[in-house]
Amino acid sequence: MNLHPDYLLNQIQGPADVKKLSVDQLHQVADEIRHLVVEKDAAIGGHLGPNLGIVETTLAFHYVFDSPHDKIVWDISHQSYPHKMLTGRAYGFLDNERYHDVTPYSNQDESPHDYYRVGHTSTSIALAVGMAKARDLTKQSGNIVAVIGDGSLSGGMALEGLNNAGKYDGNLIIIFNDNQMSIDDVNGGMFDQLTALRESNGEAPNNLFKAMGLDYKYIADGNDVETMIHALEDVKGIAHPIVLHVNTVKGLGYAPALADEEAWHWHSPFKIEDGSDVAPASDAENYDQIIKDELGRQIEAGQPLMVITAAVPGVFGLGEIKAKYPAHYDDVDIAEQYSVTYATGLAENGARPVLFQNSTFFQRAYDQVIHDMALNRYPVVTIVKNGRISDDSSTHQSDFDLAMLSNVPNIEYLAPTNAEELVAMLQWALTQTEKPVIIREPAGEVTHGPISATAFNQIKAQVVHQGKEVAIIGLGDFFALGQAAAAELAKDGIDATLINPVSASTLDEATLGQLVNDHQVVVTLENASMSGGFGEHVDRFFAPTKVRVLNFGAAKEFNDVVPLAELYDRYHLTPTQIATDVKAVLKNL
Amino acid sequence: MNLHPDYLLNQIQGPADVKKLSVDQLHQVADEIRHLVVEKDAAIGGHLGPNLGIVETTLAFHYVFDSPHDKIVWDISHQSYPHKMLTGRAYGFLDNERYHDVTPYSNQDESPHDYYRVGHTSTSIALAVGMAKARDLTKQSGNIVAVIGDGSLSGGMALEGLNNAGKYDGNLIIIFNDNQMSIDDVNGGMFDQLTALRESNGEAPNNLFKAMGLDYKYIADGNDVETMIHALEDVKGIAHPIVLHVNTVKGLGYAPALADEEAWHWHSPFKIEDGSDVAPASDAENYDQIIKDELGRQIEAGQPLMVITAAVPGVFGLGEIKAKYPAHYDDVDIAEQYSVTYATGLAENGARPVLFQNSTFFQRAYDQVIHDMALNRYPVVTIVKNGRISDDSSTHQSDFDLAMLSNVPNIEYLAPTNAEELVAMLQWALTQTEKPVIIREPAGEVTHGPISATAFNQIKAQVVHQGKEVAIIGLGDFFALGQAAAAELAKDGIDATLINPVSASTLDEATLGQLVNDHQVVVTLENASMSGGFGEHVDRFFAPTKVRVLNFGAAKEFNDVVPLAELYDRYHLTPTQIATDVKAVLKNL
Repeated sequence: MNLHPDYLLNQIQGPADVKKLSVDQLHQVADEIRHLVVEKDAAIGGHLGPNLGIVETTLAFHYVFDSPHDKIVWDISHQSYPHKMLTGRAYGFLDNERYHDVTPYSNQDESPHDYYRVGHTSTSIALAVGMAKARDLTKQSGNIVAVIGDGSLSGGMALEGLNNAGKYDGNLIIIFNDNQMSIDDVNGGMFDQLTALRESNGEAPNNLFKAMGLDYKYIADGNDVETMIHALEDVKGIAHPIVLHVNTVKGLGYAPALADEEAWHWHSPFKIEDGSDVAPASDAENYDQIIKDELGRQIEAGQPLMVITAAVPGVFGLGEIKAKYPAHYDDVDIAEQYSVTYATGLAENGARPVLFQNSTFFQRAYDQVIHDMALNRYPVVTIVKNGRISDDSSTHQSDFDLAMLSNVPNIEYLAPTNAEELVAMLQWALTQTEKPVIIREPAGEVTHGPISATAFNQIKAQVVHQGKEVAIIGLGDFFALGQAAAAELAKDGIDATLINPVSASTLDEATLGQLVNDHQVVVTLENASMSGGFGEHVDRFFAPTKVRVLNFGAAKEFNDVVPLAELYDRYHLTPTQIATDVKAVLKNL
Repeated sequence: MNLHPDYLLNQIQGPADVKKLSVDQLHQVADEIRHLVVEKDAAIGGHLGPNLGIVETTLAFHYVFDSPHDKIVWDISHQSYPHKMLTGRAYGFLDNERYHDVTPYSNQDESPHDYYRVGHTSTSIALAVGMAKARDLTKQSGNIVAVIGDGSLSGGMALEGLNNAGKYDGNLIIIFNDNQMSIDDVNGGMFDQLTALRESNGEAPNNLFKAMGLDYKYIADGNDVETMIHALEDVKGIAHPIVLHVNTVKGLGYAPALADEEAWHWHSPFKIEDGSDVAPASDAENYDQIIKDELGRQIEAGQPLMVITAAVPGVFGLGEIKAKYPAHYDDVDIAEQYSVTYATGLAENGARPVLFQNSTFFQRAYDQVIHDMALNRYPVVTIVKNGRISDDSSTHQSDFDLAMLSNVPNIEYLAPTNAEELVAMLQWALTQTEKPVIIREPAGEVTHGPISATAFNQIKAQVVHQGKEVAIIGLGDFFALGQAAAAELAKDGIDATLINPVSASTLDEATLGQLVNDHQVVVTLENASMSGGFGEHVDRFFAPTKVRVLNFGAAKEFNDVVPLAELYDRYHLTPTQIATDVKAVLKNL
């Protein structure tokens, strides 16, 4: 139901309605937007700080410009809630039964005021320059506006974008939303110079934007809607690219968010009155902690570890490492390419780098993995998290990591099946010196079990149960699914062999070769997209033989917030479905 | 034989010998190095301009610093010939029988003065910061020096590197070798501001390096060895990061190279006296020209094409497009990530972007291909060149493109088998609006033949010859190899079916499914690494059936300048080997 039928926002169907508002009404709508951001995030979780900081900029944009004739591109788009409320989608925030009808990122299928599905950082300038040049080439008109935050500016593509924007000579407005996202964490680098610009009202020398050849203006109070309206009116229709450096306050209007900007960038459901979590903190075991505990032991034993993250410490809880071992911790900002090549340099000169990365963001460093890490064979250790079939947004689809990493020479991509194996692999990876090792952190709850080996120089698949006729190979966290499928087959008297393949990138051909003698069907299970993944490598091995292979994993497709149960059902990833498919093949042999 | 037994270089076995040289001798050695660079490149081809420009910097480095205790990292390392001559490898330049004993890029297996196999740009700062932090963490000493050119500075990772260097607080010297590589091509952006720095003796405001938080010094005459010695003595042992902006002249000492810096960046064998080519220009047909001719027709017919390159116009001869259709051409500098996302923006707003990229450099834009291009399904058209098994340096290995691109949803990765099919695919790609299309430019000489279709919305494999028992699927430029293998099998009375699969990313399952009825063996041929590639997709399709599949392509391994004939033999890529392998499987059915 509509929780706020009295709100002015109910009467705003689109930008035309924003233009009719008085200054007082603009202030009222700003308050309403802030309340709705907090209320919705409190109920279902979401990005909070970025949306609270950008309210006035968004109101001013729709007051001054004429969307969608004038076009606005949101970097990452995690700050687009106010934009959505002002472009016909307020219902997704007013009505708690419709919270899920409006997605949290921009989406061109949802509104003509949105242009891209986007969830990774630092892309907005490139997209906006492209739109601007297309406008010129096709003789269209209208302003093109990009909005990018300071957190995203450290990403190489954003800087490539500034250089190319500086070479362009038509209308382009880059709103640099400086909410000092990184201020607590960063000393030196570009962020000190941005501070100098803020403190000098934009007058300090060594201006990064001007150094890229761009025109520049500073707006000290980006949370004053009248100031923002004047600022945008001043640049509307400008015939060359300009950066509007807008100083805003992240989390403005919600006290807990102002007190801890990092914690409130994104937040899970909370109680509005004090910001406390709705769900009690879990004290269950988790793989992150198991990894960090092992690294702590190694650091205390004198290993020259360097723990590296590219601006996602929260994903792994790396604040703990930073606090206890600051000399062994480095957050390189949003700079995934740099993180891998930097790790290679650390390894070359005798340190032991341990890089933590999310599957979806690791895609940004693919060439660095190949050209710097793999070709050069330095012993960089990487932990990949969230490599799995998931119910995430399609912008963060995380099941491509096997195709990305298992096909690169010289890398061992290990897939532990339980906590003990994970620790054994990590210990080995940190002592060996022959190659880069990537460890796929298992998804889901922690399981315990035997380790497959203590050294992994030679990959030896672990035959956990020797059966016959059918062999099930369960990779990493899908080993448990293999056990369940084997139990299902046992009900029909089929005694399936059960194998932990240990590595996603190296096949133990000796063990697999023996299956040809007394097995008719081999089953592969991978928590990943199958195209280019583990199962296809097994297929190639058995392709010239009489053995039939059945692969289970995700199809090659994007999925946008599809419930996991639905995906598992679609991909036949339940023990019953697997057993049924296996029996069908057996019957037709 | 040693062509210059009289050269002082014969007495330089390493950096210790450089330190003994008088100023006059340093000048003499500089002259010798220049002569040898020109002489070797004239004989076998190689990087010329970058090596001629860096001679004095290199001499000064080895005069002032103590390599390998002090370490120098060369960006791309295409300017490392002088370094190699001064670190015990002058024989590879003095003795024309040993030209191939010294590789053209840095190589840690070749010398303790080299640290990485490197051939892609913009990595040196990341590597150097890593080495510096590892030095600190492991309580080593010595200076860390990175050398990076202005051409590489536009790459996002270099800029990420500057930001992270600016955050570091120990010894690090970044030599910014500004030889105005891009000066002819570039207006605006960072390069205008670098010009302002040169013209103001380093005093101009809006200094990119200072904006990244770095200390900075300008050296106007980087080709004066005494100046460079003093400059490096001044910063040796410095306790914080500093950028030495060194102004040098690319191609210094060879008149033709000074007259056309771009043409002499790398050069094939030439006559020293006038710089003319040894090999006469070929007037044979080539696929680049066929593509450019088609694009020219489309532009003249009014299509809003935008031809994009990320600083490799020479690979495709795009200067022709730039000259004839300047409004339809954009070189975005070394900025591969940007190029893809920018193309997506162009497509969104109604232009028709055509991106040209080398297989090996395209790796830099993997996430942009997935997150911006594929997920958003805009009709960006990309031409990928050199996707093939090759005799290149391992730094430029180019056979990973099928694993990189064929596993991404929503993309059609087309593999034409001849000129007519290439044009048909390009024409279709530029009129359809449903998805990004990538076209794999065939390697080798142009062939002609029938087209498989005029539209490629639905992939329909082309059964070129209907046989039985054995089916050969030859992808793209390996279709011809399939024909040859079929001819070989015909000698033994085997009438193989011959199929052009059209796409590397989409299987025509209807056509493949029919093979199950009357074929025992399916053969796949791909000019690529097989791991994650085309053949494995075919394997997965047939895995649950009785059909045996044999895959032919490259193994998952790096190869460093291995002759193509040797690779083909190793991978069984000759018609005779293929036929023999097929017959062996048939015999054991």
